[in-house]
Amino acid sequence: MQVEGVSKKFGMAPGSLVYIGDEEKALIRISVIDYTEEGVVETELDDLTACAEYAAGESVTWINISGIHDPKMIEELGRIFNLHPLLLEDVLNTETRPKLDDYDDSLFAVLKMIDYDPDIRELDHEQVSLVIKKGVVISMQERVGDVFDPVRERIRKAKGRIRRSGADYLAYALIDMIVDHYFTILEQIGGQIEELQDKVAADPDQEVVQDIHRYKHQIIYLRKAVWPVREIIATLLRDESHLIGSDVRLYLRDVYDHTIQVVDTVETYRDILSGVLDIYLTSVSNKMNEVMKVLTVIATIFIPLTFLAGVYGMNFQYMPELAWRYSYPVIWAVFLAIFAAMIWWFKRKKWL
Amino acid sequence: MQVEGVSKKFGMAPGSLVYIGDEEKALIRISVIDYTEEGVVETELDDLTACAEYAAGESVTWINISGIHDPKMIEELGRIFNLHPLLLEDVLNTETRPKLDDYDDSLFAVLKMIDYDPDIRELDHEQVSLVIKKGVVISMQERVGDVFDPVRERIRKAKGRIRRSGADYLAYALIDMIVDHYFTILEQIGGQIEELQDKVAADPDQEVVQDIHRYKHQIIYLRKAVWPVREIIATLLRDESHLIGSDVRLYLRDVYDHTIQVVDTVETYRDILSGVLDIYLTSVSNKMNEVMKVLTVIATIFIPLTFLAGVYGMNFQYMPELAWRYSYPVIWAVFLAIFAAMIWWFKRKKWL
Amino acid sequence: MQVEGVSKKFGMAPGSLVYIGDEEKALIRISVIDYTEEGVVETELDDLTACAEYAAGESVTWINISGIHDPKMIEELGRIFNLHPLLLEDVLNTETRPKLDDYDDSLFAVLKMIDYDPDIRELDHEQVSLVIKKGVVISMQERVGDVFDPVRERIRKAKGRIRRSGADYLAYALIDMIVDHYFTILEQIGGQIEELQDKVAADPDQEVVQDIHRYKHQIIYLRKAVWPVREIIATLLRDESHLIGSDVRLYLRDVYDHTIQVVDTVETYRDILSGVLDIYLTSVSNKMNEVMKVLTVIATIFIPLTFLAGVYGMNFQYMPELAWRYSYPVIWAVFLAIFAAMIWWFKRKKWL
Amino acid sequence: MQVEGVSKKFGMAPGSLVYIGDEEKALIRISVIDYTEEGVVETELDDLTACAEYAAGESVTWINISGIHDPKMIEELGRIFNLHPLLLEDVLNTETRPKLDDYDDSLFAVLKMIDYDPDIRELDHEQVSLVIKKGVVISMQERVGDVFDPVRERIRKAKGRIRRSGADYLAYALIDMIVDHYFTILEQIGGQIEELQDKVAADPDQEVVQDIHRYKHQIIYLRKAVWPVREIIATLLRDESHLIGSDVRLYLRDVYDHTIQVVDTVETYRDILSGVLDIYLTSVSNKMNEVMKVLTVIATIFIPLTFLAGVYGMNFQYMPELAWRYSYPVIWAVFLAIFAAMIWWFKRKKWL
Amino acid sequence: MQVEGVSKKFGMAPGSLVYIGDEEKALIRISVIDYTEEGVVETELDDLTACAEYAAGESVTWINISGIHDPKMIEELGRIFNLHPLLLEDVLNTETRPKLDDYDDSLFAVLKMIDYDPDIRELDHEQVSLVIKKGVVISMQERVGDVFDPVRERIRKAKGRIRRSGADYLAYALIDMIVDHYFTILEQIGGQIEELQDKVAADPDQEVVQDIHRYKHQIIYLRKAVWPVREIIATLLRDESHLIGSDVRLYLRDVYDHTIQVVDTVETYRDILSGVLDIYLTSVSNKMNEVMKVLTVIATIFIPLTFLAGVYGMNFQYMPELAWRYSYPVIWAVFLAIFAAMIWWFKRKKWL
Repeated sequence: MQVEGVSKKFGMAPGSLVYIGDEEKALIRISVIDYTEEGVVETELDDLTACAEYAAGESVTWINISGIHDPKMIEELGRIFNLHPLLLEDVLNTETRPKLDDYDDSLFAVLKMIDYDPDIRELDHEQVSLVIKKGVVISMQERVGDVFDPVRERIRKAKGRIRRSGADYLAYALIDMIVDHYFTILEQIGGQIEELQDKVAADPDQEVVQDIHRYKHQIIYLRKAVWPVREIIATLLRDESHLIGSDVRLYLRDVYDHTIQVVDTVETYRDILSGVLDIYLTSVSNKMNEVMKVLTVIATIFIPLTFLAGVYGMNFQYMPELAWRYSYPVIWAVFLAIFAAMIWWFKRKKWL
Repeated sequence: MQVEGVSKKFGMAPGSLVYIGDEEKALIRISVIDYTEEGVVETELDDLTACAEYAAGESVTWINISGIHDPKMIEELGRIFNLHPLLLEDVLNTETRPKLDDYDDSLFAVLKMIDYDPDIRELDHEQVSLVIKKGVVISMQERVGDVFDPVRERIRKAKGRIRRSGADYLAYALIDMIVDHYFTILEQIGGQIEELQDKVAADPDQEVVQDIHRYKHQIIYLRKAVWPVREIIATLLRDESHLIGSDVRLYLRDVYDHTIQVVDTVETYRDILSGVLDIYLTSVSNKMNEVMKVLTVIATIFIPLTFLAGVYGMNFQYMPELAWRYSYPVIWAVFLAIFAAMIWWFKRKKWL
Repeated sequence: MQVEGVSKKFGMAPGSLVYIGDEEKALIRISVIDYTEEGVVETELDDLTACAEYAAGESVTWINISGIHDPKMIEELGRIFNLHPLLLEDVLNTETRPKLDDYDDSLFAVLKMIDYDPDIRELDHEQVSLVIKKGVVISMQERVGDVFDPVRERIRKAKGRIRRSGADYLAYALIDMIVDHYFTILEQIGGQIEELQDKVAADPDQEVVQDIHRYKHQIIYLRKAVWPVREIIATLLRDESHLIGSDVRLYLRDVYDHTIQVVDTVETYRDILSGVLDIYLTSVSNKMNEVMKVLTVIATIFIPLTFLAGVYGMNFQYMPELAWRYSYPVIWAVFLAIFAAMIWWFKRKKWL
Repeated sequence: MQVEGVSKKFGMAPGSLVYIGDEEKALIRISVIDYTEEGVVETELDDLTACAEYAAGESVTWINISGIHDPKMIEELGRIFNLHPLLLEDVLNTETRPKLDDYDDSLFAVLKMIDYDPDIRELDHEQVSLVIKKGVVISMQERVGDVFDPVRERIRKAKGRIRRSGADYLAYALIDMIVDHYFTILEQIGGQIEELQDKVAADPDQEVVQDIHRYKHQIIYLRKAVWPVREIIATLLRDESHLIGSDVRLYLRDVYDHTIQVVDTVETYRDILSGVLDIYLTSVSNKMNEVMKVLTVIATIFIPLTFLAGVYGMNFQYMPELAWRYSYPVIWAVFLAIFAAMIWWFKRKKWL
Repeated sequence: MQVEGVSKKFGMAPGSLVYIGDEEKALIRISVIDYTEEGVVETELDDLTACAEYAAGESVTWINISGIHDPKMIEELGRIFNLHPLLLEDVLNTETRPKLDDYDDSLFAVLKMIDYDPDIRELDHEQVSLVIKKGVVISMQERVGDVFDPVRERIRKAKGRIRRSGADYLAYALIDMIVDHYFTILEQIGGQIEELQDKVAADPDQEVVQDIHRYKHQIIYLRKAVWPVREIIATLLRDESHLIGSDVRLYLRDVYDHTIQVVDTVETYRDILSGVLDIYLTSVSNKMNEVMKVLTVIATIFIPLTFLAGVYGMNFQYMPELAWRYSYPVIWAVFLAIFAAMIWWFKRKKWL
C-alpha cells in the first residue's frame, strides 16, 4: 500500500523530519567522489562535516548517501548545504511522488530506482533524491546498492565527457542511469509476459488472471515512476535554471525520449495483457462448450435408447412383441439405427 | 444522494440563507485562538460580537465555528466581517463542491473533511468553509469534532513556524491537515481492499461485487473531494492574491503534491478493484466449469452402462444371452471395460 | 429522436422561419413584467406591437412568450427588436443545442428546461430562448408553464436584489432557475436509482437492464443540457459583453459551480448504474450456477444408483446374487453408502 | 476499405494527377451558374475553356463539375484557374480526409457528401471539393446527382440573401447543404435503430449484433465526415482569410453549431446501441437460464423416481415388498409425495 | 519485444556507439546520387571518404547507407559531416522512437519503414534515419532493400519537380514514400480483416480471437510508427528551420494529412475488430445455447417416459395394470401423448 507510511506523519508540523520508509536499516554509507578533468578523489566518510570541504572549490563533488533513516543526519546535511526543511522532509518521506522542485540555489529531484526479481516476480523500489547545486550533486538512497556503478566507472576511467563536464552533466548521468534501468526491467517482465502468452495457448489455468493483473500493476507502477520524469525534464528544459547548462539540455532531451519509449512499451504490454485475458476467457468458454457438447451427445444418444429398453422391460402380460421370435435382433437393429442417425446428425451439426 | 438538500432551496433568491445539511444539531461552539509570536489567547465565545475585537490588531485570529445550522448567526458573521451573501449561502449549503472564490478582501475556500468508519465501512463527510482575511482565518464546520487538533497543539506549543507566520500559513496548515487525513482514510480502505483480495482468492461469494462497488464509490468520493483542492491551490499559486505570502506558496506546492498522490493512490486502488472483479468473475466461471465437468463425467459414464443393463432387463422370450451361463460375468467385464475406457478418455482430456 | 425536426427544414434558405417542434399547440401567451425599484407593472398582451413601448424607458422589461409555433409572430418580434434572422431561426428550431450567441446589441442564449414525470419515468424537455438587450429580457418557450414562477414572485414582492438590478440580473435569475431545477430532477431520478439498487439486491429481473439504460439516457440528457451552460457562462465571464455588469458576474460564477455539480452528480449516478449492472449480471450468473449445482448433485447421486438397480433388473438366468437371501438388504446398504459418500463429497466441495 | 485507392498511387511524384475513385463513370457534366443581384445565367459546358469568361467580371460564378475521373480535364482546370498541383491531386484522390487548405488566392475545402439507402442499409459517400476564389466557387463531385438543388433553386428564385451575397456566401450555402443532409441520414438511421430496439425487446436473434455494429460503423463514418468540418469552419473563422466576409462568418458559426449537433446525436446513438447490445446479451443469458431451469426441474424430479422404480424392478428372490399386497399403491403414493415435495421446493426457489 | 536491444547498452556513456539491431548483416552498401537540374551522377562507394566531395558544391547529394551495424563507419560519418554523438547513437539504436531533432546545422529524423508479409501475417520493420543538411540528405537503413526506388526513378527521369528542388524536397520525398507505404500495408491488413469477418460469420473457431489480437497489434504498431511523424512535420512547419524552404512546407502539410488518414483508418479497423470479437463471442454463446436446448429437449421428453416404463417394469405381485389386456397399447398411447405435448410446448417456447 503506497500510503502506509504517510499517515504516520499525520498532524506533524510541515518540515518535521521523520523517516517514512519500510523499515530502518542499520547501515549508513556516505561516499564522496570529487573530480576535475585532471583527477578523481574517491573516499568514504563517517560523518557529514567533511563534506563541506569537498563541495567547496572548482571540482565537481558527488556526495552519495545510502541509508537515510537517521533524521538527525539529514538535518545536519540541511544545515551544511542550506537546504529547505520541505526538501529534507521529502527526502525522508520515501513515498514522495517523483518531482522536481526549484529552490533557486538548488534543484531538487525525487526519482524511483526500481529493481525486479524475476523469481518472486516482484518489483523492489527505492527512492533516490538528488540535490543539484553549483558544483555539487547530493544523491540520497534508502539502501546500499544502486544502479550508478557505471557512472562511477566512467568517472574513474574518464570515459565519455563526464570528467570534462559539470555537476549538471553528472545529475543527467544519474537520472539517465535510473531511466535506462527501467528498460532492463521491462525486458524481464516482457519475457515473462511472453511465457504467459505461451502458457495461455498451451494449458491455461486460473492463475493466468492473477498473473495478468500482477504484471499489469507492475508495468503501471513503472509508468507511474517514469511519467513524472518527463515533467521533471520538461521543466528543466523550459525553466532555463542557471544550474543546467545548454549543452546538457541536449542530453536531457535524450532521457525525455527514453521516458516516452518506456511509456510506449508499457502501453504495448497492457494491450498484450488484455489480449491474453481475452484469449484466456475465450479458451475457458470454449472448454465449457466442449464439455457441454460431450454431455449432450452422450445423453441425447442413450436416453432415448434407454427408454426403449425400458419399454420392453415392462411386465405387462399382453405384449405381443415379447413373444415374437425376432424381436431381439430387431430391437438391436433399431438401437443401432437410432445410434447411427444421431451420430450422423451430430456430425452434420459439427458437434463431433 | 448528493443533491437532496439543494432542491430544498429551489426558487429562493440567490443569497438566501437557508441551512442545507443532514439534520440540525443542537450544539454550536465558537472558539477563538488569537496568537502572536509572543503568546496565545484561547477562548470560547457565546456569540459572535466579541469576534471583531480579536480580529482587530496585529495578532493572527482563528475563529472556528462548529455547527452552522443557524442562518441568523451566519448572517451576523457576514455583517461583522463584511462577507458577500453568496459566500454565506455557500457556507450553509453543505453540498457545495470544493472550490476557491476570491472576494478581493477575502479568500473563501470550501473543503470536505472526511472520516471513515471501518466497522460499518462508511465515509462520513463534513463541509469545512475557510474565510481568509488579513490576520484572520474563520473556519466553519457542520459539527463539533475535527482533524485540526494537531494545528491547535502546534499553536499552543509554538511548534514549527506557525506562531512566527501569518493567517496565510494558518490557512495552509488547516488545508494541509484535511488533505493529510485523506491518507489515513486511504490506508484504512486500502487495508480492507487487501482483505477483499484475500477473500476472493480463498472463498469468493457474491458480496464481493457489492464490496468492490462500495470501495470504488468511496475512493471516487475521496478523489472528488481532493481533486478540486488541486485547482484551489493552483489558483492560489497563480493568482498571486495579496493575502498569500510568497513563503507560504512553497508549502502550498507541497499540499498540491499530496493531492496528486491521493489521486494516484485512488487510481491504483481502482485498478486493483477491477482486477479483483476480474478474478472473482473468472473464479465463478471456473467453478461453473468444474460443476459441469463432474456432471458430464458421471452422466457420460453411467448413462451408456444403464442402457446396457436396461437391454438385458428386457423381457423378450428369445434372447440367447439370457440363457448363456457366462453372460453375467461377461456383462460385468463389459461394464468395467467401458468404465475404464471412459476414465482414460477423461484423463486424456484433462477433465479429471 | 433529436434530429427529427431538423431535417424538415432541409434545403431552405438559412434564416427561413419554420417551426420545428413536437406539434403545434393552440395557445400563445405573451406576458410582460415591467419593473423598476419603485414598482411593477404586469400585463398580458394579445399581440407584440405594445411590447416596444414597455421596452423603451428606464425600467427593466421581461417579455415572456409561451408558444412559439407561429413563425409570423416571431418574425414580427424580430422586426420590433431588430433581431438577426439566424437568431429567430434558432428560436423556432426547438432542437437547437444550448448555446450563447453574441450579436453586439443583444445576447442570445438557448437553454433546455427539463421536467421529469416519475410515474412514467420520462423526461419532458422544452426549449427556452433568452434575448438579453439593454433593459429588456425576452424569454420564449414552447409551451405555457415553466419554472420561472419564483422569479415572478421575487419581482412582485421585491425579494432579494432583483428589483434593484438590471436586465442582466434578471437573465441570470432565469438561467439560475433552469439550472437549479435540474437538481430537483436529479433528486427524483436518484431516488428511483436507489429503488433499483434495492430491487437488484432483492429480486432482480430482466427489466433491470432496461431500467439502467433508461436512467442512463436520462442523466446523460441532463448532462447534455447543462454542459453547454458552462460554456455559455464561461463565455459571458470571459467576453466582457457590455450587457453583463460586473456585479452579476459573481452570480453567474455561482451558476457555473452548479453546472459542475450537476455534471458531478451525473457521473456519480453513471458509476452507480454501472455498479448495478455488474451486480445484476453477477446475480444472474450466480443463479445459473446454483441451478447447475442442483442438477449436478441430483444427477450425480442417482444416475449411478439407477445403473446399479438396472444391473439387478437384468434377466440373466445365472446371476448368483439374485438367489442369495441377503442381497436385497445388502444392495440397499450399498445404495445408502454411495448416497452418503456423494453427499459428503459435495459438502466438502461446498456445493451443498 | 478506405485506403484501397490510395496505394494505387504509391511511388508517384506528389502532384501526379491520377484518379483514385471507385470506378470510372462515363458521364462528365460541367454546369455554370453565373449570377448577380439582377439576374442569373445558367448553362452547361462541353469543355472548360469557356469557364474563364464566366469567372471574370463582377458576377458570382459557380462552376459545378460532376465526374472527375478525367485527370486531363482537372489539369486544364488547374491551368485556367492557376491551382496548385497538390490541390488538384486532392481533388482526384477521393479518399482525401475532409480539410481546408489556404492557398492565399484561393481556399480549398474537401467534404464528404453522404447518402443513405435504408433498404440495403448502406451509406453511399461521394467526395465534394470546393475551390473558393474571388467571385468564383468551383465544386467538383464524383458523380452526377447531389444535394445542392435547393441552393440552385434559391439562386434561380432569388430566395433569401444568396443573390445579394458573394462567393463566400455561396460556398457557405453548399457546405451548409452537405452538413444539413447528415441530419436526414441520422434520422433514417435513428428510425432503424428504434426498430432494432423493438426487435431486441420482442424477438432477439443473432443478427442483432451484426446490425448494432453496422449502425455503429455508419454513424462513426458520419462523425468522421462531419468532425473535420468543425476544424474547417474554426479555421475559416480564425484565419480571417480575405475571401470570407465578416457577415458570412455568422452563418458559418451556424454550420459549426450543426456539426456539434451531429456529433452529439452520434454519441447518443452510440450509447443507445451499446444499451441494445447489453439488453440483447442479457436476454440471451436469461434464455439460457430458463432452458437450464427446465432441464434441472424435469431431471431433478424424475431421476430419483426412476431410481425408485428401478429398485423394484430388480429380480432378487427375497424382496419382501414385492409380495406385499399394498406395495403398488404405496409406491405410487411415494412417487406423488416426492413429486409434490419437489414442486413445492422449486416454487419456493422461484424456479417455477 | 521492443526493449530488448536497448538494455544491451545499459550503463554505457551517452554517445557510445553500439549497434542495437536484430542481428548483424554482412552487407553494407553506400550509394550516392548527386543531381542538379541539369544532370544526375549515381555511384556506389566502398568507403565514406569520397562522400565529402559529392556533398560539397551546389548539387543535391543523397547518400544512402544500407547496413549500419559497423559503429566505426558511423563514427567516421559523424566525423566527416560533423554530427553530434547523440545523433549517431540514435542511428545505431534501432529501437529509437520516430522523432525529429534539430541540431542547428542539420535536422535529424528517425522513421520506421514497415513491410508486411501477408503469408506469415507479420510486420517487418526497419529503422530509417535521415540527416538533412544544406544540399545533402543522408539516409541510413538497417538492411539493403527499401521503398525509395520510385524516388530514385523520379530523380533519374527528372519526373515532377524533384530535380528542380533542393535537399529539403528530397527529404520530403523520402518521408512521403515511407508514409505512403503504410497505406499499402493497411490495405493488405484490411483485406485480411475482411476475410476474418467472413470467417466469423461462416465458421468461427477459437483462432479468431488470436487473429483479432494479431491484427490489432499490427495496426497499433503502424499507428505508433506514423503518429510521431505528425509531430515531426508539425515541428518542421512550426520551427521554421532554415533548412526547410517555404515551398516544401506545402508538401509536408500533405504528408501530415496522410498521417491523419493512417491513424483514422487504424481507428476504423480497431472498431471493426472489436465488432468481430463481439460477433464471435455472441456466436459462441449462441452455439452453447443451441447445445443446451437440444440436451434439454431430449432429456425433458425421455426422462419422464423412462420413468413410466420403469414403473411397469417393477416386479410387484399385485399390479392390476399388468394383467389388463389393453395396458400395452394404452401405455404407448400415453407415451405418445406425453411426447406430443412436450413437442408442442417446446415449439411454443420457440426452442424447436
